[in-house]
Amino acid sequence: MSFPLVDALYGRPHEGVPVWFMRQAGRYLPGYQAVRAKTDFLTLCKTPDLAAEVTVEPLDKFGMDAVIIFSDILVPLEGMGLPVTFTDRGPCMETPLRSASDIEALKSIDPTRETGFVMDVIRAVKDRVGGKVPVIGFAGAPWTLACYALEGSPSRTFMSAFQMLYREPAAMHRLLDKLATTVGEYLKAQIEAGVDAVQIFDTWGGMLPDDQFEAVSIAYCQRVIEALDGCGVPRILFVKGAGIKIEVVAKCGAEAIGVDQTQNIANVRQRVGSGVALQGNLAPESLFAPRDDLLARATKILDSMKDDPGFVFNLGHGILPPTPVENVKAVVDLVKAYGRS
Amino acid sequence: MSFPLVDALYGRPHEGVPVWFMRQAGRYLPGYQAVRAKTDFLTLCKTPDLAAEVTVEPLDKFGMDAVIIFSDILVPLEGMGLPVTFTDRGPCMETPLRSASDIEALKSIDPTRETGFVMDVIRAVKDRVGGKVPVIGFAGAPWTLACYALEGSPSRTFMSAFQMLYREPAAMHRLLDKLATTVGEYLKAQIEAGVDAVQIFDTWGGMLPDDQFEAVSIAYCQRVIEALDGCGVPRILFVKGAGIKIEVVAKCGAEAIGVDQTQNIANVRQRVGSGVALQGNLAPESLFAPRDDLLARATKILDSMKDDPGFVFNLGHGILPPTPVENVKAVVDLVKAYGRS
Repeated sequence: MSFPLVDALYGRPHEGVPVWFMRQAGRYLPGYQAVRAKTDFLTLCKTPDLAAEVTVEPLDKFGMDAVIIFSDILVPLEGMGLPVTFTDRGPCMETPLRSASDIEALKSIDPTRETGFVMDVIRAVKDRVGGKVPVIGFAGAPWTLACYALEGSPSRTFMSAFQMLYREPAAMHRLLDKLATTVGEYLKAQIEAGVDAVQIFDTWGGMLPDDQFEAVSIAYCQRVIEALDGCGVPRILFVKGAGIKIEVVAKCGAEAIGVDQTQNIANVRQRVGSGVALQGNLAPESLFAPRDDLLARATKILDSMKDDPGFVFNLGHGILPPTPVENVKAVVDLVKAYGRS
Repeated sequence: MSFPLVDALYGRPHEGVPVWFMRQAGRYLPGYQAVRAKTDFLTLCKTPDLAAEVTVEPLDKFGMDAVIIFSDILVPLEGMGLPVTFTDRGPCMETPLRSASDIEALKSIDPTRETGFVMDVIRAVKDRVGGKVPVIGFAGAPWTLACYALEGSPSRTFMSAFQMLYREPAAMHRLLDKLATTVGEYLKAQIEAGVDAVQIFDTWGGMLPDDQFEAVSIAYCQRVIEALDGCGVPRILFVKGAGIKIEVVAKCGAEAIGVDQTQNIANVRQRVGSGVALQGNLAPESLFAPRDDLLARATKILDSMKDDPGFVFNLGHGILPPTPVENVKAVVDLVKAYGRS
């Protein structure tokens, strides 16, 4: 069986332009809000039936070309010894990493056990979706996970992570190494549980200085990607804010890369060549705009990538909570009509 | 009289590599901390003697090639009708802008009156510095000021600003227009009070989507720069996180542009040509590193810009509070020795 999304991620010919949105299952949706009114965030992640219900809501409502499992990038950290709580301000660690010996003490996990509930979510989602669209699994990149594990609370600067990186680089690389191993195994388990594609989110990769980017972000993303060689599903790497380094991201071994909204996606295609699929890059903020303006912006992206077999329409980063539901539908309808007219 | 910093900003031959650090007068310094123990942030900005004392501390301690007046980019907003309080979490507006009519109601200011205290700070600083080094004045760029004025509290996403931008673009551009006028006049007043160079900080310019960057960040920076035509001092434009658009930033009419640490500064030189001076770009985080590592990173930047007359050594963004004072001194000593050996 062939899915347009999977074909596009491999750069193979297919009909239409596949579309899904990062964070498409979440806070802007009424069904999600109803579930969250009764269930805290982590319980939702750990309750396969509820997580599956939330996962498929955008499919039922908008007819996206894929679902992405409802979960959080920090979920695998708990089993390593780093329990996370999710507050209104964002995720918090009860015991963030503070030293090289904290890093040494991190446990390795068997993802089918410690994060077995994620695999249950995948199976429940597959069951509900019934082969209609592919199911996307995901994980955080080592550097992004390290930022949270060291900082312990929401941050704009991740000062603790940067202090560890510069004061104790050996300890930081030990942490990145452990995280790369964990993330690789975690995604492998997701693939075994049935996901049809995986995305690695390096949300904070773009913060790294020029002389650290490849060694700290890219090298460990590559480790994760290589761990999945031969697994038979396409891999998407999304490094946010790294437009200036997009050639390096593109050479990472992933079948597809995410393009954030600060970049011109057609220009990215020129820079990276045709060897990798591109996914993006409507500014999620443009979903606040009046309908005509919004559709004009989306059309500009579609036109600029017309007939590119390796193109998946998505946002430039995750959908924002105040997004009007009807605008999401309007864009998805536009993309679906665009490819098939 | 000629200052190496001013020569470098104009790309004129001079001896050595001039060096100063963004936020060089601030939280990492013991003198500053002693002053702040007795004085709140805003009172410090408004008390010329104290602000001047804090401004010259890094000159006395490290021998930088310039001082930058101690102040805050939000200072001119108070006179427009937007009082700011400075909390531990960051700046907060008591009455952030919420609508087009709030924007219409903003007052225009006479910067020599409503921000007369800044001009007094400049005169006090000039007095203390006694012509030894140039004094740099500064202001926030219109888009960055709009982000704060609309958000009202510290943010990573500036959701309120983006909602205004997309829902009510005419109102947003009216705000940017008013801010550009104010910032232009504010910097003109600083120049009349005696500053030898000015820097415009577009801290949040890099967040803008590809299809908004020029219209929202650059166009209004250009307005500010043009307002200063013929004022006789060099203008530095620093748009953080905009490496991917650095050619556009470079064409803005400023004599010099800031380069953040996500970019390779020698590569930026190749991209923008020799018509504009470059200022940057040591990662402020690298000041946490052991001395050898730190100096190796700084030397790499110096070597890559060797003999470039339009180069000012600086950080890639503002110095961070946990920075060890002795590491600042080590880098400044390195740069000063580098140019004169």
